[in-house]
Amino acid sequence: MRRGSNQLRVADYNQAVVLGLVRRSRGVSRADLQRESGLSSQTISNITRRLIDDHLIRESAPGGNTRGRPSIPLVTEPDGAYSVGVHIDPARLSAVLLDLDGEVRLARQEPTPQATNPSEVTALIADIVDGLITEAGIARARLLGLGIAAPGPLDVDAGLLLDPPQLPNWRNVRLRADLHAATGLPVLLDKDVTAAATAELRACPEASNSFVFLYLGSGVGASVVLDNQVIRGTTNNIGEVGDLIVDPDAEQLEWSGRRGGLAAACVPEALVLQAARVGLMPLPNLNDYVAVDDACSTLCALASAGDAVASRLLDRAARRVAVGLGVLVNLLDAPRVVIGGPLWNRLSAAFLPVIPDLVGGELVARDGVVVQGSAVGDQVAARGAAELVMDQFLAPRASALLVE
Amino acid sequence: MRRGSNQLRVADYNQAVVLGLVRRSRGVSRADLQRESGLSSQTISNITRRLIDDHLIRESAPGGNTRGRPSIPLVTEPDGAYSVGVHIDPARLSAVLLDLDGEVRLARQEPTPQATNPSEVTALIADIVDGLITEAGIARARLLGLGIAAPGPLDVDAGLLLDPPQLPNWRNVRLRADLHAATGLPVLLDKDVTAAATAELRACPEASNSFVFLYLGSGVGASVVLDNQVIRGTTNNIGEVGDLIVDPDAEQLEWSGRRGGLAAACVPEALVLQAARVGLMPLPNLNDYVAVDDACSTLCALASAGDAVASRLLDRAARRVAVGLGVLVNLLDAPRVVIGGPLWNRLSAAFLPVIPDLVGGELVARDGVVVQGSAVGDQVAARGAAELVMDQFLAPRASALLVE
Repeated sequence: MRRGSNQLRVADYNQAVVLGLVRRSRGVSRADLQRESGLSSQTISNITRRLIDDHLIRESAPGGNTRGRPSIPLVTEPDGAYSVGVHIDPARLSAVLLDLDGEVRLARQEPTPQATNPSEVTALIADIVDGLITEAGIARARLLGLGIAAPGPLDVDAGLLLDPPQLPNWRNVRLRADLHAATGLPVLLDKDVTAAATAELRACPEASNSFVFLYLGSGVGASVVLDNQVIRGTTNNIGEVGDLIVDPDAEQLEWSGRRGGLAAACVPEALVLQAARVGLMPLPNLNDYVAVDDACSTLCALASAGDAVASRLLDRAARRVAVGLGVLVNLLDAPRVVIGGPLWNRLSAAFLPVIPDLVGGELVARDGVVVQGSAVGDQVAARGAAELVMDQFLAPRASALLVE
Repeated sequence: MRRGSNQLRVADYNQAVVLGLVRRSRGVSRADLQRESGLSSQTISNITRRLIDDHLIRESAPGGNTRGRPSIPLVTEPDGAYSVGVHIDPARLSAVLLDLDGEVRLARQEPTPQATNPSEVTALIADIVDGLITEAGIARARLLGLGIAAPGPLDVDAGLLLDPPQLPNWRNVRLRADLHAATGLPVLLDKDVTAAATAELRACPEASNSFVFLYLGSGVGASVVLDNQVIRGTTNNIGEVGDLIVDPDAEQLEWSGRRGGLAAACVPEALVLQAARVGLMPLPNLNDYVAVDDACSTLCALASAGDAVASRLLDRAARRVAVGLGVLVNLLDAPRVVIGGPLWNRLSAAFLPVIPDLVGGELVARDGVVVQGSAVGDQVAARGAAELVMDQFLAPRASALLVE
């Protein structure tokens, strides 16, 4: 079942450099490639020929503004390669099919099966991948692989979920091996926040992009991008910020999280517990993350509809989250905060009007900070997982260049 | 007065690479240099000749274990170049003279003049630098420059102190220009925590060194080293962690810091306020950082001598600091924490027996973390400032290699 993908593997560093330049451009001539890569015209000619033969890039129509012989822009062939990214949030499974242009061809979302064993989720993910391939009508041989974004802690190198607190049946699950067996695809596993930061970075290319990403889903997490580098932590488990104390006067909730912590301030379980306590809604089954997520949607809808109690509750959540973001910005001297994840669309109406000024009020050494919502949207972690697969196969790796 | 240092400036990237390899070694042969740098034997021969002529490196006695013609180890010439580093803590001025071997030749410490204007401190620093040169008997032309480590916020590029809260008379002080005028030396200004992390990194060379550095002095700060890179923040103002809440139940102190924050947990002013409140000592003049620092020394001495109240107070401080370190380790997935700065020698006896386990108890996604005291000691920030000067002049800069 393992497909022969070797014709797509770019072992040669220079070839990867050239493909990378084409991927990041909206059309680049051979002369531009030569100047930007520092490679010779003969090498550029050979490499671009190979990439065209492999259907990874193509010549597009030349622009009309140059005198003499027009230069022919090279662009990526969108159908040259694909990757699938799947984000396992305890409440929602999101999946995207990404093409070589970096466009999302298809997207799916399903409730995450609850109170089940991981093999059911593995089978569901394999079904989703098959469905995406079939519906998009793409050649399976062009699918580079499957990227999974999951809550930590996890062992990225071994492809293991260790013991994610919100997936109680998922202890030491060999997710990468299981999904490889189920799909026949190369599989990459990474942390949800790392995948999300990767997608956000790609969505806003800048000369030097640094930001803190705050992930809001069934759990809360953070990731850090410094000078276009996604920081992963030495065990790839960056961003555990749920215990960060953001409100010393917060109430004790009937749950395992830290009183006054960032998780207690903003994750659906905590918000629903708070809403039930003030009589806004009955308490759902807290072991059912889908039910909790739905109840949280109800709370956000109440606030949007003008319910004063619901609005005050979300406003308090925004104030608490702002304290946490202030800590991260003050620690890292970060110029920008991006908030995203599956919960963000529902909270943004309550958060965005107040949170930039609140975070600004927390700053110690900086003049200001930009706080904004994700440019990618709900699928940010799924999309990042797909981007990580593309990079794994296609991006030039500087380490291959260094003298050992 | 500006000295002609051009003969020491290493403009050539390859020459800087070779000098760097010699600096980081305890003796390296030309053949080793050729292998490690990837340069040709002729290039290595030319570069080492130039470095020997400039008295930056020298040939040492060959080892006796090789057959045939022995290879001659090249080592740095300790007197080839020097730098001075000065750390301005609000209570203590520390200065070191560093030689090209990376050894501290001389060190000085003085109380920081209080309630004064910055020009008096500038003059004092110029006197200290002159005293170090004279006492060490070094050639002034071999002194590369002066590095200053100071509390933030500061503008590193402009060489400005902005408005450090603990140096109330130091608003928009052109420290770099003033010190250049006073000493005739090239001057570099950087944040205290960044300088400290730099020195700590150099003291423990490892293949891939990542750690959080917690700075304890008149203020508290943090810095971050990831894969041998000192992270500075986008405005060079990394590490403002004083407002990080570490004890929601903490008392409100009679000062401007945040209740329950990390600063309120461990800076001398807060510890002295706590000690005075429980009757351990009279309250010193809180506007006099030297008096506060001395009172804090008294508190630590009481604890060392077995005073139960003083010991409980420092034990509580350790517990609070551990909560803060847990936040940093959980956020950054850091394998190691190093604690240092001018206050550390006095707190380590109370902190080190308990703090590693306390931080371990805070971990969410990691199996463990190493917590240890600085390998450099009290002068860590002054030494780092001197190292930064050496690097500025002598280290190869990768950016010079990249195709623009």
